[in-house]
Amino acid sequence: MSFRAKLAQAAAANRSLLCVGLDPDPERIDGRDIASFLRDIVAATSDLVCAYKPNLAFYEQLGEGGYALLREVLQAIPSDIPVIGDAKRGDIGHTMEAYARAIFDDLGFDAVTVQPYLGHDSVAPFLKRGDKGVFIVCRTSNPGAAEFQDVLVEDAGATRPLYEVVALHARSWDEHGNVGLVAGATYPGELKRLRSLCPEMPFLVPGLGAQAGELEASVRAGLDAEGGGMVINASRSVLYASTGSDFGEAARREAESLRRAIEAQRAAAAGSRA
Amino acid sequence: MSFRAKLAQAAAANRSLLCVGLDPDPERIDGRDIASFLRDIVAATSDLVCAYKPNLAFYEQLGEGGYALLREVLQAIPSDIPVIGDAKRGDIGHTMEAYARAIFDDLGFDAVTVQPYLGHDSVAPFLKRGDKGVFIVCRTSNPGAAEFQDVLVEDAGATRPLYEVVALHARSWDEHGNVGLVAGATYPGELKRLRSLCPEMPFLVPGLGAQAGELEASVRAGLDAEGGGMVINASRSVLYASTGSDFGEAARREAESLRRAIEAQRAAAAGSRA
Repeated sequence: MSFRAKLAQAAAANRSLLCVGLDPDPERIDGRDIASFLRDIVAATSDLVCAYKPNLAFYEQLGEGGYALLREVLQAIPSDIPVIGDAKRGDIGHTMEAYARAIFDDLGFDAVTVQPYLGHDSVAPFLKRGDKGVFIVCRTSNPGAAEFQDVLVEDAGATRPLYEVVALHARSWDEHGNVGLVAGATYPGELKRLRSLCPEMPFLVPGLGAQAGELEASVRAGLDAEGGGMVINASRSVLYASTGSDFGEAARREAESLRRAIEAQRAAAAGSRA
Repeated sequence: MSFRAKLAQAAAANRSLLCVGLDPDPERIDGRDIASFLRDIVAATSDLVCAYKPNLAFYEQLGEGGYALLREVLQAIPSDIPVIGDAKRGDIGHTMEAYARAIFDDLGFDAVTVQPYLGHDSVAPFLKRGDKGVFIVCRTSNPGAAEFQDVLVEDAGATRPLYEVVALHARSWDEHGNVGLVAGATYPGELKRLRSLCPEMPFLVPGLGAQAGELEASVRAGLDAEGGGMVINASRSVLYASTGSDFGEAARREAESLRRAIEAQRAAAAGSRA
């Protein structure tokens, strides 16, 4: 089953656009076994999410042990929940072939995030895998995102911020219906622009919780015409909702609360469409 | 010793600006033990180079075995030759802290390549490590590099291609004298522009050999005022110079030939400065 189909099924079955980022921080896990911590987080949330998203950095920082940990985590995720490898890789095509083998074939992720800066031939080794999802980093959630992403560019006769040019190019690369955008929740205005430029693409939306994105405004800005098309990620606010032994229950409560807030915006948007 | 000092010492001792990219391709190594193949390449070339540059993709594609392989290769490199981790990571600052731990602390690289697209706060966790080198991906060597890197941008009253804006920002980030640029050998004109904008920065120059950059034009375009400031990388043309059992000698001959061609251009440039 393609990533898009798997994502749609999981989102429908769990009535959720929430994605939980599985990013282990040894200091905040505080002496617990990291693998069992993450397994408990998955067990506590897997009926509340449409996807999981491990960011590879948090495994790579653990060396060989991180590799084994990542495989354990991937195994613990129910097979009907798609898993996005947040890798943000970007290199020349020959090198990206190797990254695609690592991320899709060796690790078995359903989707990935990639950098746009090297252009189409750079991401082509990922794009050609039509069964896999490819989220192009477009407008990020960090404070300095504007430094390059918002520079004004002459493109096809119009003046636009660079992130809009990236979005339009990404749309033109989408031969297999497997392309999406990374668009941060911290910038609802940009999310709205992107939705108008790319009405049918899935958006991976990081920046909820620890990064303090405005949930309501972001959801309203990013929903597609059918009230979907978003994968809204929270990592630290769910994983570390409690530092005590009740971390699983606390994570579930936080995930439930986020899902409910997202669903309320979807219902309101459906109402205003009706 | 800082990366910059180590690089200068190795370049002087070996009279070389050549860097060999240690990127294992199992199909081209053809049944040989990959670790011993790479150890032999290092042994055959370590008096001819100023640096080595493993690209992490080619290890990640091998799973857990790739991790062990990378550590073996890093151990086989003489301690006076700096090693650049070609990772091209780019993510929000919190995540880049984890990548910096992975690349600098766990793996022990002397320098790294990073993506610019997320801006200064994204690469700050690398930049603050003043003893380590940080090469910002600026103008790459792939055929489609121009798609985003050459878009014309309004910046501080001037209209410039985006890669020049990235270079100027990178220069302004260089508080610790540890910042460099990735600038492909396939585009000597762009290399020359970058040298005029950033007269004192080291350039990591990929694209020789398999990517068919014009060596002479690139070296002349990229040298700094002292006839240095370049780390000129060749990977496949050295590693796979022969597919036979003489691969080590063939790699050495190819590395010698590249070093000689680079030195000839440096001598000519020194002559024209005198």
